[in-house]
Amino acid sequence: MAKNVTAQTLQRLPLYFNYLVSLPENRKSGNISATAIADALGLNDVQVRKDLASVSRGGRPRTGYVTAELINDIGHFFGFENHDGVIVAGVGNLGRAMLGSDSFADYGFDIVCGFDCNEKITGTDINGKPVRHISEMKNFCLNQNIKTGIITVPEKSAQEVCNIMTDSGIKYILNFASVHLNVPENIIVHNENISMTLAMLTRHSFFEKELTFR
Amino acid sequence: MAKNVTAQTLQRLPLYFNYLVSLPENRKSGNISATAIADALGLNDVQVRKDLASVSRGGRPRTGYVTAELINDIGHFFGFENHDGVIVAGVGNLGRAMLGSDSFADYGFDIVCGFDCNEKITGTDINGKPVRHISEMKNFCLNQNIKTGIITVPEKSAQEVCNIMTDSGIKYILNFASVHLNVPENIIVHNENISMTLAMLTRHSFFEKELTFR
Repeated sequence: MAKNVTAQTLQRLPLYFNYLVSLPENRKSGNISATAIADALGLNDVQVRKDLASVSRGGRPRTGYVTAELINDIGHFFGFENHDGVIVAGVGNLGRAMLGSDSFADYGFDIVCGFDCNEKITGTDINGKPVRHISEMKNFCLNQNIKTGIITVPEKSAQEVCNIMTDSGIKYILNFASVHLNVPENIIVHNENISMTLAMLTRHSFFEKELTFR
Repeated sequence: MAKNVTAQTLQRLPLYFNYLVSLPENRKSGNISATAIADALGLNDVQVRKDLASVSRGGRPRTGYVTAELINDIGHFFGFENHDGVIVAGVGNLGRAMLGSDSFADYGFDIVCGFDCNEKITGTDINGKPVRHISEMKNFCLNQNIKTGIITVPEKSAQEVCNIMTDSGIKYILNFASVHLNVPENIIVHNENISMTLAMLTRHSFFEKELTFR
């Protein structure tokens, strides 16, 4: 099924998922219709029905979906049952927030280690996750077959850290430093610039409900 | 001009901006062609020329753009010369990262205050920004005409904090808690779920170069 999912559907699926998991427990144990989801999120119900049909076969006329099954189906589509190791380079406030968060596990990610060059924090633990010196990244990632890295270092160090990541076998980089990173062709970088998100939100009304994808 | 900017162009403009500002100083003082930008970012040069023409009139045949002017034109389009006050609700690691960052100013945002209910931190300062009790939010926002808020509280408190924000005159909410927020119709919420971004990046190759917008 997943092969037929359009980019637009892909943008809306996280909305459904977040809505469903935030329902009170008594509603999670029941059924829910596409119409009810559409109403709650202010979306078109035909669209919602189509979107859900692309990742779940559980929809029934009149009764709708078993809520728990629908949550599972969307979660499965996004790979939330995985245990993919992720490293964080740069253990400042933002990196610390990543290491300290327990919510990544719900999405199938284990933040396994932080890296930094500040020897005051290397060797310490944050939320049970070790912080190691950045010179140890390559060995660590190759040994543990880590493919995903988050960059939370200052802008001036981001390219250098990015080079170490690609050299360490990392394929996917989530970059919080607001600089363009040069990477080999087979590496995918997503730049997450919170200031730019604010600009698009407040000055260009970019995030219309149906476009908002997370 | 800005009225003719398509969603697709809007998605790519931040790429150009980030690339241009990350150029070394000696290149920033010169000229740059749309072709050079296209090559550096792996985009189609006709597309880049079109995108840039929608926000800048500075392009000249053969010589291209004066780099500094092009940076200004894109920055102006995004309102980076503004000084829009922003509040942060929830002063944990993530909220602390927001208050501690100096990069928002480059995008025309002043993070003016953090709010929390933990009395161990209310009354303190982070990076020169005060942390106040959440009960003071309404007066603060109405007095200072704050229209933008960032939610970095735990999921279970997010809806309550959201309600206080909308009651305080906030119009734009950047929500880092992974729950669906119910808001009045005139309020725009953008949900930023870092785990979901990782899932879309690593499991669905969602962020093709031309789609990546920040």
